Amino acid sequence: MRKLIKNGTIVTAADTYVGDILIHDGIIARIGADLDAEGAEIVDASGCFVFPGGVDPHTHLDMPFGGTVTVDDFESGTIAAAFGGTTTIIDFCLTSKGKPLAEAVQAWHAKSAGKAVIDYGFHLMVSEVTDEVLLELPRIIEEEGITSLKVFMAYKNVLQADDGTLYRTLQVAKEQGALVMVHAENGDVIDYLVREALEAGHTEPIYHALTRPPQLEGEATGRAAGLTELADSQLYVVHVTCADAVEKIAEARRRGLRVYGETCPQYLVLDQTYLEKPNFEGAKYVWSPPLREKRNQAVLWDALWNGQLQAIGSDQCSFDFKGQKELGIADFSKIPNGGPTIEDRFSLLYSEGVHKGRLSINKFVDIIATSAAKLFGLFPRKGTIAVGSDADIVIFDPSVERTLSAETHHMKVDYNAFEGMQVFGEPVSVLVRGEFVIRDRTFAGKPGSGRYTHRKRFGEADKPAVKKLPIGGSS
Amino acid sequence: MRKLIKNGTIVTAADTYVGDILIHDGIIARIGADLDAEGAEIVDASGCFVFPGGVDPHTHLDMPFGGTVTVDDFESGTIAAAFGGTTTIIDFCLTSKGKPLAEAVQAWHAKSAGKAVIDYGFHLMVSEVTDEVLLELPRIIEEEGITSLKVFMAYKNVLQADDGTLYRTLQVAKEQGALVMVHAENGDVIDYLVREALEAGHTEPIYHALTRPPQLEGEATGRAAGLTELADSQLYVVHVTCADAVEKIAEARRRGLRVYGETCPQYLVLDQTYLEKPNFEGAKYVWSPPLREKRNQAVLWDALWNGQLQAIGSDQCSFDFKGQKELGIADFSKIPNGGPTIEDRFSLLYSEGVHKGRLSINKFVDIIATSAAKLFGLFPRKGTIAVGSDADIVIFDPSVERTLSAETHHMKVDYNAFEGMQVFGEPVSVLVRGEFVIRDRTFAGKPGSGRYTHRKRFGEADKPAVKKLPIGGSS
Amino acid sequence: MRKLIKNGTIVTAADTYVGDILIHDGIIARIGADLDAEGAEIVDASGCFVFPGGVDPHTHLDMPFGGTVTVDDFESGTIAAAFGGTTTIIDFCLTSKGKPLAEAVQAWHAKSAGKAVIDYGFHLMVSEVTDEVLLELPRIIEEEGITSLKVFMAYKNVLQADDGTLYRTLQVAKEQGALVMVHAENGDVIDYLVREALEAGHTEPIYHALTRPPQLEGEATGRAAGLTELADSQLYVVHVTCADAVEKIAEARRRGLRVYGETCPQYLVLDQTYLEKPNFEGAKYVWSPPLREKRNQAVLWDALWNGQLQAIGSDQCSFDFKGQKELGIADFSKIPNGGPTIEDRFSLLYSEGVHKGRLSINKFVDIIATSAAKLFGLFPRKGTIAVGSDADIVIFDPSVERTLSAETHHMKVDYNAFEGMQVFGEPVSVLVRGEFVIRDRTFAGKPGSGRYTHRKRFGEADKPAVKKLPIGGSS
Amino acid sequence: MRKLIKNGTIVTAADTYVGDILIHDGIIARIGADLDAEGAEIVDASGCFVFPGGVDPHTHLDMPFGGTVTVDDFESGTIAAAFGGTTTIIDFCLTSKGKPLAEAVQAWHAKSAGKAVIDYGFHLMVSEVTDEVLLELPRIIEEEGITSLKVFMAYKNVLQADDGTLYRTLQVAKEQGALVMVHAENGDVIDYLVREALEAGHTEPIYHALTRPPQLEGEATGRAAGLTELADSQLYVVHVTCADAVEKIAEARRRGLRVYGETCPQYLVLDQTYLEKPNFEGAKYVWSPPLREKRNQAVLWDALWNGQLQAIGSDQCSFDFKGQKELGIADFSKIPNGGPTIEDRFSLLYSEGVHKGRLSINKFVDIIATSAAKLFGLFPRKGTIAVGSDADIVIFDPSVERTLSAETHHMKVDYNAFEGMQVFGEPVSVLVRGEFVIRDRTFAGKPGSGRYTHRKRFGEADKPAVKKLPIGGSS
Repeated sequence: MRKLIKNGTIVTAADTYVGDILIHDGIIARIGADLDAEGAEIVDASGCFVFPGGVDPHTHLDMPFGGTVTVDDFESGTIAAAFGGTTTIIDFCLTSKGKPLAEAVQAWHAKSAGKAVIDYGFHLMVSEVTDEVLLELPRIIEEEGITSLKVFMAYKNVLQADDGTLYRTLQVAKEQGALVMVHAENGDVIDYLVREALEAGHTEPIYHALTRPPQLEGEATGRAAGLTELADSQLYVVHVTCADAVEKIAEARRRGLRVYGETCPQYLVLDQTYLEKPNFEGAKYVWSPPLREKRNQAVLWDALWNGQLQAIGSDQCSFDFKGQKELGIADFSKIPNGGPTIEDRFSLLYSEGVHKGRLSINKFVDIIATSAAKLFGLFPRKGTIAVGSDADIVIFDPSVERTLSAETHHMKVDYNAFEGMQVFGEPVSVLVRGEFVIRDRTFAGKPGSGRYTHRKRFGEADKPAVKKLPIGGSS
Repeated sequence: MRKLIKNGTIVTAADTYVGDILIHDGIIARIGADLDAEGAEIVDASGCFVFPGGVDPHTHLDMPFGGTVTVDDFESGTIAAAFGGTTTIIDFCLTSKGKPLAEAVQAWHAKSAGKAVIDYGFHLMVSEVTDEVLLELPRIIEEEGITSLKVFMAYKNVLQADDGTLYRTLQVAKEQGALVMVHAENGDVIDYLVREALEAGHTEPIYHALTRPPQLEGEATGRAAGLTELADSQLYVVHVTCADAVEKIAEARRRGLRVYGETCPQYLVLDQTYLEKPNFEGAKYVWSPPLREKRNQAVLWDALWNGQLQAIGSDQCSFDFKGQKELGIADFSKIPNGGPTIEDRFSLLYSEGVHKGRLSINKFVDIIATSAAKLFGLFPRKGTIAVGSDADIVIFDPSVERTLSAETHHMKVDYNAFEGMQVFGEPVSVLVRGEFVIRDRTFAGKPGSGRYTHRKRFGEADKPAVKKLPIGGSS
Repeated sequence: MRKLIKNGTIVTAADTYVGDILIHDGIIARIGADLDAEGAEIVDASGCFVFPGGVDPHTHLDMPFGGTVTVDDFESGTIAAAFGGTTTIIDFCLTSKGKPLAEAVQAWHAKSAGKAVIDYGFHLMVSEVTDEVLLELPRIIEEEGITSLKVFMAYKNVLQADDGTLYRTLQVAKEQGALVMVHAENGDVIDYLVREALEAGHTEPIYHALTRPPQLEGEATGRAAGLTELADSQLYVVHVTCADAVEKIAEARRRGLRVYGETCPQYLVLDQTYLEKPNFEGAKYVWSPPLREKRNQAVLWDALWNGQLQAIGSDQCSFDFKGQKELGIADFSKIPNGGPTIEDRFSLLYSEGVHKGRLSINKFVDIIATSAAKLFGLFPRKGTIAVGSDADIVIFDPSVERTLSAETHHMKVDYNAFEGMQVFGEPVSVLVRGEFVIRDRTFAGKPGSGRYTHRKRFGEADKPAVKKLPIGGSS
Repeated sequence: MRKLIKNGTIVTAADTYVGDILIHDGIIARIGADLDAEGAEIVDASGCFVFPGGVDPHTHLDMPFGGTVTVDDFESGTIAAAFGGTTTIIDFCLTSKGKPLAEAVQAWHAKSAGKAVIDYGFHLMVSEVTDEVLLELPRIIEEEGITSLKVFMAYKNVLQADDGTLYRTLQVAKEQGALVMVHAENGDVIDYLVREALEAGHTEPIYHALTRPPQLEGEATGRAAGLTELADSQLYVVHVTCADAVEKIAEARRRGLRVYGETCPQYLVLDQTYLEKPNFEGAKYVWSPPLREKRNQAVLWDALWNGQLQAIGSDQCSFDFKGQKELGIADFSKIPNGGPTIEDRFSLLYSEGVHKGRLSINKFVDIIATSAAKLFGLFPRKGTIAVGSDADIVIFDPSVERTLSAETHHMKVDYNAFEGMQVFGEPVSVLVRGEFVIRDRTFAGKPGSGRYTHRKRFGEADKPAVKKLPIGGSS
């Protein structure tokens, strides 16, 4: 079965041109001006942008956290992602000290199989580097194609690893061709600040932000970058929120270190004042790291523009306001951390970035899809529109103006973090490997059609595919 | 007439894939897997990379300087460029105080018409901003499509403009959508240092470097960036050579300023010790700014990698060693500044960058072609391989290992700056608008086939081409 | 004749202790606990601080500027200085291109002789470095003890020197042991911004600030520091006003460069909003560089505290509001630049610095007296309370709270820049070489009693005075 | 009993002058030119500098470490200190988790009482902040006058505290007016690097340096400064060795943070290559942090000169080469850390600093004595030569040229870290509270004559001593 997407303005991380795309067997077979249908189903994209499907490198679907579980699972989460223009996610597979890694990976396969409507991969959390872990890791990297390892510098006594563990993970990653991801906040000090605030009777959501000041994110980011330099390894800092952290990443990159950074839509458009909303509504805006003072937004936009941050993850981690966020009504430290962002990530970056003139449209594609695909070993199958790539495609109408809202979103969660915000542009149809998942704003997929993707090792994705050709460095 | 380039590994600033390219009327009409010939001439690119033709944003062909004229003109210069994989150049049109700008532009048209074998445009030098200049500039920008203005901060009493002129040029550029280019060195101090050295009897070529220390380039670069911020304008720093200057550019970009930078192949692979070669051979390596201490090379590579420098110009400005460079045999300040680089720019960046693992192959394409095309308003006609773009194409065999030499190069000049250097890869065939200029390593073009190109205004080139579509910011 | 100052709390740049000071022949002969009077006149300093007399390294008395002359001359100016606690000033001797330097120095001697009531020296302005200047300078440095040279980077077509001249002055200074002082603003660009503003019809005082943005001070400061590094010389940046400039000085010092900086009281306590005062009152606050946004004040205080700025000059340059400042009523660029600060410099730094806890009392003495005495070759005769030093002493009552005002000040000028400001502490009595100039808040000196002081060469002042002792570096 | 020190060149942190000093009851009673003897014992200081006695803020005498005990105790250690020109030390009192702090303090009193020949105080180590500690600390600060608290960020599983503990200590210090001192190295990573090196069979002393890279010191220094900012407290970084750490301190100070730093003589004159000495001799040079690459020395000198480092501690911690250092002959991690420096600290700083022109002589006094006295609450009793201060005085002959050696030193330890180094200048006689401890190069004191000194709280030492006088900030 073939499809021909006609007359769209095709956009990649480098190019913008009007043309037709012929899809065959789920693969982009041909791109050209006025291609003949030759029996293919014709999809009209006139007046629309044709983007590669978004790659969201940071989600937490169906994840246990703080005694509860994120409300969106691989079904509702990936449906919402698809509506939002995302065709691949990489979800975090949590592990537990003392248990085999393979067990955790199997659990994550069980959560996703038969549910996902878009393609997906897993990152693997590392909380200790024991002899067992050292034995198991290479096998998992090889067999599962899990080529990114997550280390937490925060969440003391829960997820937090110490600096020795981070360093060893960086070493292993170097040997094995994996990319280390860090949640960079100083967990020891936060732990104390939280206890101090609670002892002083401060229980409201705003204290979540006040007990996690930006200096502690900057500090941990610089620390992780320094260890990366020592280990001669590679690092990806997730959810960068503030000038303090951006500076550390830029400084590392200036010295040629393979240090990369991601921010999230919430840090680009929301700020710390949201945590002060009355009636416990601030709880909806509890992320870690927290929303920051507004002046940080310009710093993040500049860092995306000048290439010091490369990608944008949703950090989707949705909890209902009723029943879940409310767990923290008497104690901000019990509010489950995270929010619903998987659906609006793509449109927010387009609207605030491209429409408002902060980013070129090619840079937008790079940030929303291509960079993450390259860094995490999905490229060139994912993350671009090129001959031979998977036909993961978003047909996007830039002339639409609409309002984000829980009333219209497709996540299960009972609120929308961007409620009432106006955005320009909308994904109209979305294809994964040539099949419609969204067609004319209507769900057209089926649970289980999403596939697990093995990923290449770090630095392999943007090397030329053909044999014998000399190869280059990493992006 | 149509051509079909088959089985190459096509590379753009974003993508790498195997496919065929169908060219029709000089335009890329179709890209796909296994395209049918349909009567087109077939060009086999198996085992080769298929790159967009290089865009060299910095050449001085047939240019008077210091009482002599650069030896390579628009014929020999563009033939050499084509052999080297470059299909578009932008040459500097010098102006004189008190004379109409249009006169200078006409002189440059006269130099190039009937000679160039590849496409070309002009930058316009600005040495004063009088009422006449203010009247004439908008017309030239509009009618000639010359959307970049060059200001010299060095060459006192010859080309140098003062800071007030630079500032006004930045203002005009902002209003008119032009990009200001600066030669950033402190000419006042250099002028004194040169006189001081000569008075002390120091006449050898090495004093060219010693009288132009890197601090003076860093200083001027920071000054130009500061004025750009004040004028809320855009700046492109040509021939960046050293850490001092890179820091200033990175610092400006960190604050979101539209400041861009270019380096040149000579600064990436040669160093200051070359100026100490015996028998006056050091004169071959006299560029301004001069070659620097070797440690700067890593800084430049890092800056290309992390995106703080965006492009690479040849700064082609060739003078024969015999008769021209020799003008300075008794006085280094009389050595004509510049060297022959137009031919080897592309191959050197590939070999030292991609082959040695410093740059991804996509980044290479961005630096050698796409970035410059976007910044200087040539995109998407030039600088990429995409449907609708000019079929400016390089078929590049990465398996070749060869030696750069004046014996084999195609420039008229009597020496090669990279004599004896081994490089990996060679442009085998080169097409401009679908026509072979180089075919199987043989010249196949004809003088005059190159066309003058009007260029878009700054920030227009990477906006979507179709009407009514919202537009984004600059790269 | 001898005096015994009893029971004061003596403060130097290092020490704070209660003791008595015996003065003999104008020199501090003895310091101790409970010294016997032995026939000396007893001066009771109980409950008071006993400070070394202030050293003000930056005044413009009786100076022609913009077609008028500063209203305070060496008589009224030094009387006011004495009331304010200052016992030595260094005034700027202006020179003219093409005229002998000696002529200018003689003119300055003529202005000061018979008038000054405190001691004084001269800095020498350098506007060109011709062969004549090179011949004359060493003689003036030697014979007149003028060991500091001032170069203006601003005031285009009036005082401004080009970068080559600055560089040569730095070289000469190095050879001769002089300290180069710069007014660091980019005069070329300011000149243009001023003309542009006036052409746009902006004539109000606030445009003085808006046409001299802080970036242009930072830029020029960095440029001067860079040239100092190249020349391996020493630099003192006068009237530093903003974060942009402080950063450049700190950066230079971090690399060990002998670069020093001075701020002025007005930049510590006033801000740009003063220029917006109605009824042309903003003209009273026209200084160059201009008053800045308030946030710069904290940066300046921090830089004094952490030692990156070393001194505070008044930049006394008073013009009457009536008749003088009014020259610019229709054109801000015609407002004479400068204001009356010589009298309140000492008390403002004490009150805002020590009283408000920003500076230790020893640091205060260093900034107000000792540092300048060391940098400008007056030490140890001036700038401290030590055996063998001139008995230049301020008896200061910290318990007084008073209001600064033109009604009570002793300058001739018709307004006070700090009108209405509350300060803590007051100089009660002031001695120069053991003689009262101010006694119990009453003038007790006589015009002409102030002496011209030859100054040591740069780096000589804080070397041990005794022969044969090894000597150290500069402060 | 009175003494009159005649004709010396008296030097303080501010002043240099020739004069006589009259001592009465151990206190400086009078300073003057040609003071009468009036029955006092006359001490001739002609041709000599008269310095305040050195204050060494960092010693480890009679300290258990790694299963052994430092070889110099309060007797031999303070005798050596006195020979070297030091008259006050502050020694580190180690504590143990779970045991009362008072017990540790008593133990330290027991070690020192009856032995010390110069005055001394204690710093208190904090390894946990429990409720007991919070109860006990204020009492100890008040009763013992111990106003500085030491936290180790290194020595995992031994002395190391976590970041939460450091933060709480900073908070307590702020409330109580204490200064927090940190050993800033990342202990977690070092611990791993050490184990890794040993597993790889690397047992030689050089691996001590290689497993403690400078980045880990820079990282920890920045972390501690960041926590200080958050806690709005004050910090003193001990034994700063490298550019990485200096940058972090300078950066903190630029923002006005009360962050101070100390380096040690060994880091100024030795470097990492010493660890490579054959026959296990490298073990003599095992300090933590380790000796660094030579280029760091210039950075440290510059930081002393420009005031970003304020003091110099010996970090005296001597172990015999025979029997003690040899514990690590098969395993570098078992080499006791530390070396003998208490005796040569003063002369090395004079010789390399003042004699070689890197520091002014006043800056030397500030660094060797005054700064530490002010920061640690000993001033004005200690650290200066002023009326009312303790007569702790060094008579120093700058004309001597001599060689440092274990053969001539007075420490018990069996080697000298600076063996064979030439220095200029020698302390000839040393007085503590007016009594000779060293007289004409001969020991003249007696064990037990040194006194324990209560110290003022942070920020109190350089406030004026008299009542009712307004007070200033900290240095």
